[in-house]
Amino acid sequence: MNKRLVLYLTGYVLLIESALMTLPLAVSLLYGGEDHMAFLISMAFTAAIGFALVRLRPQNEVLRAREGFAVVAISWIAVSFFGGLPFFFSGWVPNLVDCMFESASGFTTTGATILTDIEALPKGLLFWRSFTHWAGGMGVLVLSLALIPKMGARSVYLMRAESPGPAPDKLVPRVGKTAKILYELYIALSVLLVIALLLCGMNLYDALIHTFGAAGTGGFSNYTASIGHFENPAIEIILAIAMALFGINFALYYYILQRNWKAVLHNSEMRLYCSIILLSTLIIAWNIAGLYGGNFLHALRLAFFQVSSIITTTGYATADFNLWPQLSRMLLVALMFIGGCAGSTGGGLKVVRVQILVRSLMRDIRRTVHPKGVSTVKLDGHSVDEGIISGVQGFFFAYMFLLVLCSLIVSLDGFSFETSVTSVIATLSNVGPGLDLVGPVGSFAMFSPRSKIVLTLCMIIGRLEIFPILMLLSPSAWRK
Amino acid sequence: MNKRLVLYLTGYVLLIESALMTLPLAVSLLYGGEDHMAFLISMAFTAAIGFALVRLRPQNEVLRAREGFAVVAISWIAVSFFGGLPFFFSGWVPNLVDCMFESASGFTTTGATILTDIEALPKGLLFWRSFTHWAGGMGVLVLSLALIPKMGARSVYLMRAESPGPAPDKLVPRVGKTAKILYELYIALSVLLVIALLLCGMNLYDALIHTFGAAGTGGFSNYTASIGHFENPAIEIILAIAMALFGINFALYYYILQRNWKAVLHNSEMRLYCSIILLSTLIIAWNIAGLYGGNFLHALRLAFFQVSSIITTTGYATADFNLWPQLSRMLLVALMFIGGCAGSTGGGLKVVRVQILVRSLMRDIRRTVHPKGVSTVKLDGHSVDEGIISGVQGFFFAYMFLLVLCSLIVSLDGFSFETSVTSVIATLSNVGPGLDLVGPVGSFAMFSPRSKIVLTLCMIIGRLEIFPILMLLSPSAWRK
Repeated sequence: MNKRLVLYLTGYVLLIESALMTLPLAVSLLYGGEDHMAFLISMAFTAAIGFALVRLRPQNEVLRAREGFAVVAISWIAVSFFGGLPFFFSGWVPNLVDCMFESASGFTTTGATILTDIEALPKGLLFWRSFTHWAGGMGVLVLSLALIPKMGARSVYLMRAESPGPAPDKLVPRVGKTAKILYELYIALSVLLVIALLLCGMNLYDALIHTFGAAGTGGFSNYTASIGHFENPAIEIILAIAMALFGINFALYYYILQRNWKAVLHNSEMRLYCSIILLSTLIIAWNIAGLYGGNFLHALRLAFFQVSSIITTTGYATADFNLWPQLSRMLLVALMFIGGCAGSTGGGLKVVRVQILVRSLMRDIRRTVHPKGVSTVKLDGHSVDEGIISGVQGFFFAYMFLLVLCSLIVSLDGFSFETSVTSVIATLSNVGPGLDLVGPVGSFAMFSPRSKIVLTLCMIIGRLEIFPILMLLSPSAWRK
Repeated sequence: MNKRLVLYLTGYVLLIESALMTLPLAVSLLYGGEDHMAFLISMAFTAAIGFALVRLRPQNEVLRAREGFAVVAISWIAVSFFGGLPFFFSGWVPNLVDCMFESASGFTTTGATILTDIEALPKGLLFWRSFTHWAGGMGVLVLSLALIPKMGARSVYLMRAESPGPAPDKLVPRVGKTAKILYELYIALSVLLVIALLLCGMNLYDALIHTFGAAGTGGFSNYTASIGHFENPAIEIILAIAMALFGINFALYYYILQRNWKAVLHNSEMRLYCSIILLSTLIIAWNIAGLYGGNFLHALRLAFFQVSSIITTTGYATADFNLWPQLSRMLLVALMFIGGCAGSTGGGLKVVRVQILVRSLMRDIRRTVHPKGVSTVKLDGHSVDEGIISGVQGFFFAYMFLLVLCSLIVSLDGFSFETSVTSVIATLSNVGPGLDLVGPVGSFAMFSPRSKIVLTLCMIIGRLEIFPILMLLSPSAWRK
């Protein structure tokens, strides 16, 4: 492991983070908030460490796989830590463990919170909290790739480690160019959403906050009642559609701009994603209609919003789904596992992985019938490489293994089975809310510092799709 | 699919089942019970259907993989149905869905019950209920293999479909001979356990019932309070050790008789199994000690009994572990997933599968560090074939997929998250009790017929390790 290279690149990422804090600082100054000093101190602190690390510039700048994954893992942990400093220095969150939880929840687009009275916080802090969703959604490293040119062709390892899904699409041969195209699409779609929300009567501040939350599929709101606060069906429907759109592979938007309709229509992941949303919405609407006086249309709107919010792992709520019938609650938990499409800002296992797992299961059944027959797993008309299938199956086990292990540690706090298990699912899949105490109107404040640290790690592990963080624990990664 | 062959062999299995009913009939007559007529009618009925099917003797008796799996799947469903008839004809369980649930729970060695007042049942029925554990533990088909000679070399498909674990050991070249050796070991160990229980002061009837339950890792008792009824530490300790021993691969006992100590000591599955039991016992004892007045030795005994009972998927209880602290409850649920060793009577994923999954995960981490390096998964000093790894990973997904799907259906009944999920885990892993309403002092009586049918299928699917039953749903299995 070339440690100097890892620290050097982490330094760059911290400098970018420090620069990003100018935005909430401006918001704070605009609203005359008490929190501007907290941002100035945090910026200075983050920049100082960043500069110190950048001065370590190594002689050998060749990025191998292990350095690529280590940079991603270490800079995400660092970004989460330094991103929590404004909460700390402002005095609003006096505990560093809580600060890092909230910041990691932001950058990883989880949206789980340890705050109980959100409305009380100053506007600058709330802006920063939501802005981290937007920055983390597309990837802090991808952003760096777009900003720092000449990272070399091997920076594909950085992108692979940070981008969700089994194999990221390279839209154009150069990685830096691909990153730039993705960020341009992300910005354009976000601007469209801000405009739509403004047209529905939201003020600019709220529109930005909720665009950050929806585009990054994060879920932080500046209101405790989440989207339910607005009591505005137009806002609910627009956000539900927007979340669903941000859960689709961004490559598809690029193909649309290229008028490559074939690539869009032949994408079976997107078709499955839409089918799951449709089917789940109908089942939940039927299941909850009785709760809403048999008003099926109302139930349908609530169900669509919640399904879109949960499968994309955003976590916004318009109703307390924790009080819904058991089938709906369990179906939402199942959607948390699935998550968005690969190459989107959504978390979870990703639709394409579930697709590969299910098709591979069907292949195993065929093999039971014909033990000597040759049988491949097909996706979009192509055979899926056996290495990818095995990688996806390994990923699935790793996910479940971490779920069981972390649930056991969290259960030491003695909260209910539902709270313990769904708090881990909700953080590992970057959803935010779970069931029971961590339901949409609950918070993560009551957990012990031990559980908060475990859940913070779950968020980062989930966002980076497990292996970059687990690799740090492997002695072979650190050997010369 | 050679349907005649499948029906013909199923007929044989039913004739054996009918013959097995002479045992509870004898018990019933011995105790002058009211239930002997129920057994006579059930025997006649089962034998009649069996004879009718055997008369279908096909011209082509070549057993291919698909016929092998289909025989196993269909005869297990048939055996469960006909095994439930004595409950029905005796009038004690008036509902056929309940009868089949109880009978499938017996044969699959699950031990989940729909009875609420067990002590009220006549002795013959209780004997039959427990005897099905013993018959099902080693495999109804394996029994048939031992009894019907000349099934041909390809009967290995039958054994593969019914034996637990990724690849059954063939102790001797001939399958029928292997089956015979396994049954002899099973009988010998069972006789030893009966003697040990008699020495502890149990009467013969109770000793037989609890030997059937422990040897088959089933868990039916003739007392509602399960093993807690006896309030006898010696019985608890002997049964805890016995359950643990029946959760070990039977091939190891054969190696011990052959004085092949190397094969026993080098078996890493057994070593991992013992380590999991030891570690879980210590964690739970530490966690529950406070509940028992800080008496660590008492806590240790309760913990060891429960860990042994749950990891082997027996399901006996000496305490209501549903009331234990959250960590202990969750750890027990985690053990339900793991289950016993391959080639034992235990259910669950099997220790060796978990071992392969964990080592494969460690391989994936190594691959993250060295993407181009060659890395194999080793077990007992040998490289594990990639086909087996992929099979195990596929099995794991299939298990989880069924868990989510069946939990969703069961949740329609509206019971708690814990009840819905653990009832499926407890049946799919053939454990018996779960948490909350299906905890060790609860029962499955309150579920709707729909849920009972799903859970009955879960038991059979779990016992046959998923693929034989799923194969029946595949159109390609039925094609000419």
